[in-house]
Amino acid sequence: MIRFECDYAEGAHPKILELLNATNFDQTPVYGADDYCLRAAERIKELCDRKDAEVHFLVGGTQTNMTVISSVLRPHQGVISPVTGHINIHETGAIEATGHKVLAIGTPDGKLTAEQIREYYDAHWNDEDHEHIVQPGMVYISHPTETGTTYSKAELQAISGTCREIGLPLFLDGARLGYGIMADGSDLSLPDIARLCDVFYIGGTKVGALFGEAVVITNNALKKDFRYLIKQRGGMLAKGRLLGIQFFVLLERELYFEISHHAVRLAMMIREAFKEKGCAFLYDSHTNQQFPILPKDKLAELSKKYAFAFWKDIDEGSSAIRVCTSWATKEEDVRELISDIRKII
Amino acid sequence: MIRFECDYAEGAHPKILELLNATNFDQTPVYGADDYCLRAAERIKELCDRKDAEVHFLVGGTQTNMTVISSVLRPHQGVISPVTGHINIHETGAIEATGHKVLAIGTPDGKLTAEQIREYYDAHWNDEDHEHIVQPGMVYISHPTETGTTYSKAELQAISGTCREIGLPLFLDGARLGYGIMADGSDLSLPDIARLCDVFYIGGTKVGALFGEAVVITNNALKKDFRYLIKQRGGMLAKGRLLGIQFFVLLERELYFEISHHAVRLAMMIREAFKEKGCAFLYDSHTNQQFPILPKDKLAELSKKYAFAFWKDIDEGSSAIRVCTSWATKEEDVRELISDIRKII
Amino acid sequence: MIRFECDYAEGAHPKILELLNATNFDQTPVYGADDYCLRAAERIKELCDRKDAEVHFLVGGTQTNMTVISSVLRPHQGVISPVTGHINIHETGAIEATGHKVLAIGTPDGKLTAEQIREYYDAHWNDEDHEHIVQPGMVYISHPTETGTTYSKAELQAISGTCREIGLPLFLDGARLGYGIMADGSDLSLPDIARLCDVFYIGGTKVGALFGEAVVITNNALKKDFRYLIKQRGGMLAKGRLLGIQFFVLLERELYFEISHHAVRLAMMIREAFKEKGCAFLYDSHTNQQFPILPKDKLAELSKKYAFAFWKDIDEGSSAIRVCTSWATKEEDVRELISDIRKII
Amino acid sequence: MIRFECDYAEGAHPKILELLNATNFDQTPVYGADDYCLRAAERIKELCDRKDAEVHFLVGGTQTNMTVISSVLRPHQGVISPVTGHINIHETGAIEATGHKVLAIGTPDGKLTAEQIREYYDAHWNDEDHEHIVQPGMVYISHPTETGTTYSKAELQAISGTCREIGLPLFLDGARLGYGIMADGSDLSLPDIARLCDVFYIGGTKVGALFGEAVVITNNALKKDFRYLIKQRGGMLAKGRLLGIQFFVLLERELYFEISHHAVRLAMMIREAFKEKGCAFLYDSHTNQQFPILPKDKLAELSKKYAFAFWKDIDEGSSAIRVCTSWATKEEDVRELISDIRKII
Repeated sequence: MIRFECDYAEGAHPKILELLNATNFDQTPVYGADDYCLRAAERIKELCDRKDAEVHFLVGGTQTNMTVISSVLRPHQGVISPVTGHINIHETGAIEATGHKVLAIGTPDGKLTAEQIREYYDAHWNDEDHEHIVQPGMVYISHPTETGTTYSKAELQAISGTCREIGLPLFLDGARLGYGIMADGSDLSLPDIARLCDVFYIGGTKVGALFGEAVVITNNALKKDFRYLIKQRGGMLAKGRLLGIQFFVLLERELYFEISHHAVRLAMMIREAFKEKGCAFLYDSHTNQQFPILPKDKLAELSKKYAFAFWKDIDEGSSAIRVCTSWATKEEDVRELISDIRKII
Repeated sequence: MIRFECDYAEGAHPKILELLNATNFDQTPVYGADDYCLRAAERIKELCDRKDAEVHFLVGGTQTNMTVISSVLRPHQGVISPVTGHINIHETGAIEATGHKVLAIGTPDGKLTAEQIREYYDAHWNDEDHEHIVQPGMVYISHPTETGTTYSKAELQAISGTCREIGLPLFLDGARLGYGIMADGSDLSLPDIARLCDVFYIGGTKVGALFGEAVVITNNALKKDFRYLIKQRGGMLAKGRLLGIQFFVLLERELYFEISHHAVRLAMMIREAFKEKGCAFLYDSHTNQQFPILPKDKLAELSKKYAFAFWKDIDEGSSAIRVCTSWATKEEDVRELISDIRKII
Repeated sequence: MIRFECDYAEGAHPKILELLNATNFDQTPVYGADDYCLRAAERIKELCDRKDAEVHFLVGGTQTNMTVISSVLRPHQGVISPVTGHINIHETGAIEATGHKVLAIGTPDGKLTAEQIREYYDAHWNDEDHEHIVQPGMVYISHPTETGTTYSKAELQAISGTCREIGLPLFLDGARLGYGIMADGSDLSLPDIARLCDVFYIGGTKVGALFGEAVVITNNALKKDFRYLIKQRGGMLAKGRLLGIQFFVLLERELYFEISHHAVRLAMMIREAFKEKGCAFLYDSHTNQQFPILPKDKLAELSKKYAFAFWKDIDEGSSAIRVCTSWATKEEDVRELISDIRKII
Repeated sequence: MIRFECDYAEGAHPKILELLNATNFDQTPVYGADDYCLRAAERIKELCDRKDAEVHFLVGGTQTNMTVISSVLRPHQGVISPVTGHINIHETGAIEATGHKVLAIGTPDGKLTAEQIREYYDAHWNDEDHEHIVQPGMVYISHPTETGTTYSKAELQAISGTCREIGLPLFLDGARLGYGIMADGSDLSLPDIARLCDVFYIGGTKVGALFGEAVVITNNALKKDFRYLIKQRGGMLAKGRLLGIQFFVLLERELYFEISHHAVRLAMMIREAFKEKGCAFLYDSHTNQQFPILPKDKLAELSKKYAFAFWKDIDEGSSAIRVCTSWATKEEDVRELISDIRKII
């Protein structure tokens, strides 16, 4: 069975293990005060072109989302999110457990627009009963989104402009940030993101690390006491250097981007193969996740040899699946899949 | 200006004030342990035909909703509610502030159906990632709903049957319960509600009291330590007798139902008048709240003399308003309004 | 049985009922936007000599404490309080339920000192692991305290000075504020309190109202969106005018202070009687609560005719009780008690 | 500099890295459903002699504590803990952030007694105002404690007996469990702990793993939906196998206990050396943490070559320090330290 189910089925990029092995007996300061964390943080600020940013390392995505969001909002405020946002549907109510409503806005493709944000904001403040309604306190988006779509530079500029005008901090969930930045045709760079968002994170778990998310805070008002929050929400790893080492390896040179590019390139090859055979796609993704719609019998045939994530039934005869590549996907496996797509569909 | 804006603009039914005055210097036990509370609770159990029920008095609706819901749910559970449910849109996130997501389901008229509940439940448990999703832990409905609609006995039986089959406690928000029970054509009685719900409340604030909501818990599993919860959520009135006295006056005889009937009868007269003039209604309400749709110029004309609550614009030329009667509405004012409707529209 | 158990066993001062009766059929704006609320708020600002203050009316003390405290703190912060503080021991964890630790400091008499606050603050910031410890974010005191003791002007100035120096907002719980201000020998006035605290409240429930606490916010930074918080925590009374009317009656003239003085005067008479007979006191209270220590047999004798609150056993032969007067206590009852003290002890 | 500051300064036992390396490219199910997790869980149940137990793997201690505790308690309940309990003083209020008060009881040595628990429980239920006080809902202890002390079998039996009698689940924090079980002279085994507690955890982070805590739930009533809670609190590692692999390596054979024994043996050698020189100890620890009290000048001398954790000043001339060994401590370093202790003190 060749697996295209998700982008976190394997361990970590071998270079990460190499450095973990090599440094195993070093005695380092704990809780993120070690040199690897410091160097990785410096490197991230450099890559973001924001020497003034604050960088923190946490273990996982849900934890990062709840720590950041609960750190920003006051109790009566909620976070604007697309309905499909990870915080709204796949974190067992972690945000609500910190006391805040997710203010979910419907979208066709998982992407919010500047107009939607402004509309929501205006509707709130124009409602004469607004004190009886959760106040929008920040905006949450993902890049790429849970459906593989990405923001263009112009789109993010518009969102950022609106957010700054109306005073809502903008938080970008970058659990798969590498795949977003290296998306086919993307014009949105890491410095752009650092400049346009108030806080975001560079995802490690799904992009070659064993685990780990690097939070970058560029807005001064959001920096205060963030380490207290990390500790309180359970995200302060005792052996913090494990996070530092991983991000150091991924970012010291361009490894993070290379492996992201690798995954995207393979995904686009798969995409082309499905396209050639006339398959439609549930979402127009140019990242490492593809959502082709297949006749059920053909899907059954392919599934004998390949594992995909079932996404949803489209009609009686066809289903959408998610085909996922990653830093660890082998090109030969992709070529074999393509050849079978051509044969079977 | 004659006001039809809401059902809590006045003080309380004069008989309540009478007893408050008469008992003002009595020294009574505090925090709800006084005789008036005990007698009102007994009377409520009698009216509900549930001698085994537990009755508690709280001050307001938001407080009651958050106290009941946070008392029932475990941290990973949410409460199923119509999108238009008061807890979802008009309580500044009070439920989320206790850590729980409101699982909002769209409805045309503010009413959930048994089928919707079962579907939501099945969808949750059939999702292989269900541990990543907030678990439905109870069901919240209002009777009447925020849009004035009511459940029939058959509908509530179906909902209750489903809830019991799938193990979700059913909570009925009765902030306007009197108006629901006395709704034109309603076949749902207080004993029905007590039998079919696990917990519900009899609203006082909007039905003739100065304030106060009487929670009735019929499900034994939900009774434990409820007074701790009331205290923690700020709902335990020091001079608890104020609540006992009010519900005693409202329920000792049938005052609560009489004044509810009065309000509904007047509302139905207004409804007829609008109907005669060909007005459509935003919701099909047979309770004290009516939502006629009027041409904007006619509305402007009527508004010179009468105050309504603006609800929403329907199109360029017309708006829906809420016309509200209450225990305090005078029949002569209603007759005058009707006569003006006939003249102006 | 003549009752000296607590200061909230009766209803309200008759003048309050008078105005409630007189205005019962007025139709007023809801949720505290009515004229009575506005006028009461204006009057409070005048009495506080702080035209720039913001005044809000809530229903009860626990509710007020949790609303104010959760409005001020960020998630990783706690509130410094005496161990005996009401929030620490008698609110069923309402503060913790909003996510915050009560940082309790031991005291002999329920009063914090400026030195204790500074020490706690310094100890936190000098601890190199301070990010692993709840950060002190504000200070909570009561005046009078739960043990009837009061702060002098010099003491409150010292506390306030320290709090401002170290940047911790100072919150004063004034559930019995009237009795504190009118305490025998007190030199601390309402304008002093308004000047020295960042937020405090004027208690109504225990000083002649049916219920109600008037929050006064003088620190601009704490004013933002406070009404959202009141709504979320369940404290926004639909018929808000009930609160406005009560505080209007109590404060328009000097009624609040007169009835407080009345209670304190009677309490001091009782105190003298116990003192004459050689009784010691558990706390040195000059307010309406007295804590004499009595031989158990004498207490039993007195208790045949008078109700007190049992406080705690001192040794095998003696107990401390609380004797409480209030706005409603009759001088003749006090004289009778004193005569019996003289006879029995 | 030879470091005895803490037991988590290094990476992991080399055998763990070995297996991580060997399995790095395996594609496994995510979120803890992989074979390594299953096998490690089976092995733990075997070692605990509790085939019916449920085992879950989380990342860190604070996270584990808050997940377990918030899973057990209802909103009005708190957790009884020694004042020195990690949850009370070193987790930035993580427990309070989930809504619950830590009910802290003073102890001389970090250990609760059965009597203290019963006393607290009785005091609560005998207080006539108990509904105004946080209800004790469970008991938290650590083994070894934060001060290195351990429970004897008889002590834990007494605590467990009391807890079961009064119906409070007993939770044992085993962040350093290996060092407790292998403590010098300890008669408390893993099966004892599994039998006497309702839920506990086997700490990995401080006993040879990169990170990870294995929660063992033996009480059926506490098993329900625990994975939802792990997800909600941010503890569900995407690549869950990393936890499975580590605990598999540590427990498959007796590695966990061997390395714990190693650390304890070295600590006891250090202890003897200090003892010989007449040093007193702040706590009577027979585990890997030793708390000798040293003259400040001698401490300064030793500190030129060795790193310790400063604990607290005892008087002007002497301080208590923590000397910590671990799975990674080299015997030669300990011998060198001992020789220097003999020379310098």
